[in-house]
Amino acid sequence: MEKEQQKFMAAALAEARQAAILNEVPIGAVVVKDNQIIGRGHNMREHFQDVTYHAEMLAIMEACERLHSWRLEDCDLYVTLEPCIMCSGAIINARIANLYYGAADPKAGAVDSLYHLLADSRLNHQVRVESGIMQAECSQVLKDFFRAIRRRKKAARKKGRAGD
Amino acid sequence: MEKEQQKFMAAALAEARQAAILNEVPIGAVVVKDNQIIGRGHNMREHFQDVTYHAEMLAIMEACERLHSWRLEDCDLYVTLEPCIMCSGAIINARIANLYYGAADPKAGAVDSLYHLLADSRLNHQVRVESGIMQAECSQVLKDFFRAIRRRKKAARKKGRAGD
Repeated sequence: MEKEQQKFMAAALAEARQAAILNEVPIGAVVVKDNQIIGRGHNMREHFQDVTYHAEMLAIMEACERLHSWRLEDCDLYVTLEPCIMCSGAIINARIANLYYGAADPKAGAVDSLYHLLADSRLNHQVRVESGIMQAECSQVLKDFFRAIRRRKKAARKKGRAGD
Repeated sequence: MEKEQQKFMAAALAEARQAAILNEVPIGAVVVKDNQIIGRGHNMREHFQDVTYHAEMLAIMEACERLHSWRLEDCDLYVTLEPCIMCSGAIINARIANLYYGAADPKAGAVDSLYHLLADSRLNHQVRVESGIMQAECSQVLKDFFRAIRRRKKAARKKGRAGD
């Protein structure tokens, strides 16, 4: 079971790396049903200038298309970072069974950090949550991305000063 | 100002009626910038079998496309029903300035009913909210829709019994 989780989180991580190549914050997600990936997504917000293009949303939309159904009742979602409010809402609305996420997001995470939206018994669906799956790798891909950005900015500033 | 709000909520209501024609739960939304509608949407979840196709999401996506930007900072959203968690998250992520909604949604509303997500000071954006705009009309369109469904179901049951 743990091996399976690692396999699917590795697929989500591969998606995150795709995002990094496009200069997007590297977050990736996959939707799994019957041990098969039926939806993949990586953050594409900047590329398409669309606020809804988070990794989870794109993976969920692809899964809905694949199943010809908005109900993803026997599906699991794997995502490298704790989902935000929007994505948590989509996960609940889609009736996803299990959520597995890698790193926590203390600033915007709505599953454990700021809220516990997926456990709200007032809603007509609750989602089982497991966190910390391949946490180190999921954090590292984000750290590497932001470190590279800082390095580029620093180099650009130096170049700017040299040109004065 | 109140007249303007009614004008834009009437446009959202026209969208809701479009949804009803397609046999979708009648909810409609528009995004407004500089007194112009730049995004329209009505619930299309069943038609496309896509869980993300709520009125607000579609209106926000159209506005992003129109402005070539995921930031809808000087934009207002008008919607006939109080937004759910997913749509509230999208409204926050898009940095919408003002939300105007018609009827409350006691079961799934995340703006006033179950949560006050748009007022959360821990997030990097808060949204000004006005509720109850054309509330009677916004509720009525939903009531009419569900009454028609019940009537059709009753007629189908009668027909079924007559055929026994």
